[in-house]
Amino acid sequence: MFKDRFHEVVKQALEKDRWVITDDPLRFKFGNVNFQVDLGAERIVAAERAGEKIAVEIKSFLNPSAITDFYPALGQFLSYRLALSATEPERVLFGGSVRCIRNIFPIGVYPSCNKII
Amino acid sequence: MFKDRFHEVVKQALEKDRWVITDDPLRFKFGNVNFQVDLGAERIVAAERAGEKIAVEIKSFLNPSAITDFYPALGQFLSYRLALSATEPERVLFGGSVRCIRNIFPIGVYPSCNKII
Repeated sequence: MFKDRFHEVVKQALEKDRWVITDDPLRFKFGNVNFQVDLGAERIVAAERAGEKIAVEIKSFLNPSAITDFYPALGQFLSYRLALSATEPERVLFGGSVRCIRNIFPIGVYPSCNKII
Repeated sequence: MFKDRFHEVVKQALEKDRWVITDDPLRFKFGNVNFQVDLGAERIVAAERAGEKIAVEIKSFLNPSAITDFYPALGQFLSYRLALSATEPERVLFGGSVRCIRNIFPIGVYPSCNKII
């Protein structure tokens, strides 16, 4: 499945960059919301390198309408960032994709959503 | 269709509250993104009352997994707000639903997304 291939490509890129994958998927709870359960095929990965901790939300952006994929990705990214900041504030959240999504939407104007691998 | 019924209910609620529906749907362009075209059945409505201008993004939240509906709704809301602030800054964006979505997620903690009819 394409989604899984994308997931593996992003994981391999992280490992090449000397990140150690610690959780695949990363599960965490915030309030009454159990993150990851609702994700289905879209998984979040955790990695560590020299004391740094990151979480990577991997998105495939396979929908013919890029904006249709962008809306839930933005909503998820901000929700995860909020939940992680409360549960594990030292872990920085990144969005990971093998497609260049900077051109889909002026994502740079979202100051809170400009971390893209 | 349920989605259309929800749309009508929100519109009637606005009209009862003396808002005049001016655009159904409201179409606007920001950068190279043509808003409304990608929306499909989810429509955005514009209304005016005594010089006040609003836009209402109507969401049905019909998915059994509320969080699955919430992510794109949040992404859309923030994207529309950004686009409207550039194209028509005097128009205030609201999210409209006939379901109480405050309990789905702690939406109140998003200071930019707390306008719900």
